[in-house]
Amino acid sequence: MKCGACNVDARMRDETAINLDPIQVGGRLTPEAMKAMISWGDGYSVCDACRKPFRLDYIEQPPLKDFHVDVAEWLGMAQARTVPGARRGFQQVAGTYVEKGDPVLIGALAHYTSYLSVEIQQGVVREIPKTEDNHITAEAAAERIEDVITEFGKPPKLLYIDHVDYQYGNMHDVKGIAKVAHQYDIPVLYNGVYTVGIMPVNGKDLGVDFIIGSGHKSMAAPAPSGILAATEERADEVFRTTQMEGDLTGRRFGIKEVGILGCSLMGAPIVGMLASFPTVKERVNHFDEELANSKIVINALASIEGTKILSEYPRKHTLTRLDTTGSFDVVAQTHKKRGFFLSSALSKKGITGIIPGATKVWKINTYGMTRKQAEYVADTYLEIAETNGLTIQ
Amino acid sequence: MKCGACNVDARMRDETAINLDPIQVGGRLTPEAMKAMISWGDGYSVCDACRKPFRLDYIEQPPLKDFHVDVAEWLGMAQARTVPGARRGFQQVAGTYVEKGDPVLIGALAHYTSYLSVEIQQGVVREIPKTEDNHITAEAAAERIEDVITEFGKPPKLLYIDHVDYQYGNMHDVKGIAKVAHQYDIPVLYNGVYTVGIMPVNGKDLGVDFIIGSGHKSMAAPAPSGILAATEERADEVFRTTQMEGDLTGRRFGIKEVGILGCSLMGAPIVGMLASFPTVKERVNHFDEELANSKIVINALASIEGTKILSEYPRKHTLTRLDTTGSFDVVAQTHKKRGFFLSSALSKKGITGIIPGATKVWKINTYGMTRKQAEYVADTYLEIAETNGLTIQ
Repeated sequence: MKCGACNVDARMRDETAINLDPIQVGGRLTPEAMKAMISWGDGYSVCDACRKPFRLDYIEQPPLKDFHVDVAEWLGMAQARTVPGARRGFQQVAGTYVEKGDPVLIGALAHYTSYLSVEIQQGVVREIPKTEDNHITAEAAAERIEDVITEFGKPPKLLYIDHVDYQYGNMHDVKGIAKVAHQYDIPVLYNGVYTVGIMPVNGKDLGVDFIIGSGHKSMAAPAPSGILAATEERADEVFRTTQMEGDLTGRRFGIKEVGILGCSLMGAPIVGMLASFPTVKERVNHFDEELANSKIVINALASIEGTKILSEYPRKHTLTRLDTTGSFDVVAQTHKKRGFFLSSALSKKGITGIIPGATKVWKINTYGMTRKQAEYVADTYLEIAETNGLTIQ
Repeated sequence: MKCGACNVDARMRDETAINLDPIQVGGRLTPEAMKAMISWGDGYSVCDACRKPFRLDYIEQPPLKDFHVDVAEWLGMAQARTVPGARRGFQQVAGTYVEKGDPVLIGALAHYTSYLSVEIQQGVVREIPKTEDNHITAEAAAERIEDVITEFGKPPKLLYIDHVDYQYGNMHDVKGIAKVAHQYDIPVLYNGVYTVGIMPVNGKDLGVDFIIGSGHKSMAAPAPSGILAATEERADEVFRTTQMEGDLTGRRFGIKEVGILGCSLMGAPIVGMLASFPTVKERVNHFDEELANSKIVINALASIEGTKILSEYPRKHTLTRLDTTGSFDVVAQTHKKRGFFLSSALSKKGITGIIPGATKVWKINTYGMTRKQAEYVADTYLEIAETNGLTIQ
C-alpha cells in the first residue's frame, strides 16, 4: 500500500507485531489522539479561534488554555508550555541561563541532546560521573559542583538530571541531587522524557525547577511535541516575554514569549497531546502493572545462561539494557544468519523493535503490553534460546 | 462529535466552507499527507529503519534522504534540512551568526518571529524601512547597512528579507537586496513562508544564502514543519556538526548537527511534508491560475465603493490586505450585529476564515480555490454589499 503518488509505504509496525522498541512504545498514539489528528491535522487548525492576546496557550477552543493549566498542576509545577520536542525544552532553558563559556553540570548518562543544548549556547559541559552500578548520585553532584567552582570561580549555571536515563533505564536520586544543587542556587532541569506520561511525577516533591517531558516518547502524542514546566520562581525567567522594539517602526510584540518564539506547537501534535491526556493521566497510576509485565520478560531473558541484565535490578522502569554476548551472540558466531538470527526469529513470531543484527548489548522496552503479550514475548525468547542450544537456568 | 473522552470537537472548517484565512490556506493537507499522517502518526515512526550514522536526513525508508536532496535541488540550494516551523529556521541561522550585541538588519514588514529570533541571541535589530507604497527596497537596505556600520563599527551579521510579506502580501526585491548585502559579505536569509510551496522559488537566481519555508503555511504539511536550505558556502556553518565532548566520559556525538539539535522533525510532520511534496512541486507551476482567481475576488471587493486595496496592485500574491472602513465598516456602525454582520453574512453563505467582527482593515487569502469558488466568493461579497446599501462601482 502506498499513499497515492508519494512513494511512502503504509507503516504497520504496531498493527502487525508486538513492538519492543526502546524509544517508541510510550509514544504510540491513543485512538483519541489519532482521531484528533485526523480532524485537526492542518497546521494552523488550532488558530481558528485564536483571539487577543493571540497566544497558543490562551486558545479556548480546542481547550489549549485548560490543557496548559492542567499539565502544570498534574506535574506539581506552576506553569507549563508545549515545545516541539524535549530537546527544544532543553534549548529553551539553556538559552535562558547559559552564556558563552558558562559551565553546566550534566549527568554522565544524559542523552546527547542535553549536551547539544549547551553547545548551542557555547556553554561548557562538566559531567557528573556515574557510579560503578550506573547511577548518578547526590554525592557525585556535590563533588562536581565544588570542582566547577574551583575551575570557573562560580557554580554551574544549570544542572541537568535524567530521572530515568535512556541508556540503562535506571532511576536516579533527583530529590537528593536537587537538594544539593539548591544549596548553591543552581536551577535543576529534570529530564522526564522516560517518566512524564509513564509514571507519576511531581516537581514539588522532587524539588526541581524545570520539568521536561516528551510527547512522542512518553505521552502518546505525535512528534515533535513536549512539555516544559517551571516553578513560579523560574517561570518569569524561562517564559519571559519579548522586550524587542523595532528601532524605526517602534513595533512591539505584546506578550509573545522569547524562548518559545511566540507560539510553539500547533495542529496535530498539540491536539494529539491534548486528546491523549486523559488516558495518560490515568495510565501513570498503573505503572506497577507495567513493571510486573516487564519482570516477566526480563526474568525470562535473565534465565538464559550467559545473559546479563546491565540495568539495575529489580527493575524500576520498563526500559532495560541487556548483554547477551554470552548467550545470543555465541549463537550468532556460527549461525548462518549471523547476528540477524535473533531479530529474524522474533520477527517470525510477530515481535519487532529490536535493532536487526544486535546480539551483544541491546535495549528493550516492554511498556504498553498486556500480561498475555508479556508472557508470549518471554516464552518466545526462551524458545529461541532453546532452539539454538542455549541453556535455560 | 467528540474524539472520545478528550473534549476536543471535530474540526470541519474546510469540509463545510470556503476558507479565506490568511495563514491557513497554503497549509491544508493533501489527501496524500493525510494518509501518510494516519499511517506514520507515531512520533518515532520514521526511526524504524534508522541505521548508522543515525540521523534523520539519512533515513532511506521512508525516503527522507531523497526528500532532503530533492528539496534542496528544487529550491536551487546546495543542502536542506527540515525544521519544526520556519521560526526555528530563523533561530538556527541567527544562532549561527549572531552573538550578544551584534546588529541584524530586518525588513520592517517582517513577522514578529524574525525579531524574536534575534532577541533570543541577544542581538540588536535594525530595521530596513518600508517605502510609502509598502515595499522594502535595495536602496533602503544599502542605506541602512551604512547606518549600521556607522553605529556599530561593523556591518550587520545577517539580513532578513521576506519575499512576500505577511502584512500586505507585497513582493519585495530580494535579488536587489541580496546583491547589496553581498557587497558587504552579509549573509541573506530569505523568508519564503508565503512563497516556498506556493510559487517557484530559486535561491541561486535570487542570490540568497538561506531559504526558509514553512510546511504548515505553504507546503500542505502538518505543523510544526519547515525547510531551511543553504548554499554550499553557508551549509558548513549553519549545519555544523557537534564538537562537544564529555569531560569525564569522553563521549562524542558523531555527526549530529548542533543547530538542529540532532534530528529535527519526526513522524507526522515530515512524512506529511514528504507525501505532499509531489503535489507541491507541481502546484507552484500553476500560480498564475491562483492569481487569476484572486483577481476575481479582489476586483469585486475593489468595486464596492469606499473599499481600498492596501496591497500593491495588480496583485502578485493571493494574500491581500483591504481597508473597508469606508464600506463595510460604515454598515457596521448602524447594523444590529455591529461589526459581526459581515462574518455572519459570509458564514451563512458558507464562507469562513475572516476574523469575526473585523470590518476595518483585514486580510484575505484566496489560495487553493477553484475558479467557481472564486466567482462565488466575489458574488457573495457583492451581494452582501448591495443588501446593506453599499454602492457597486
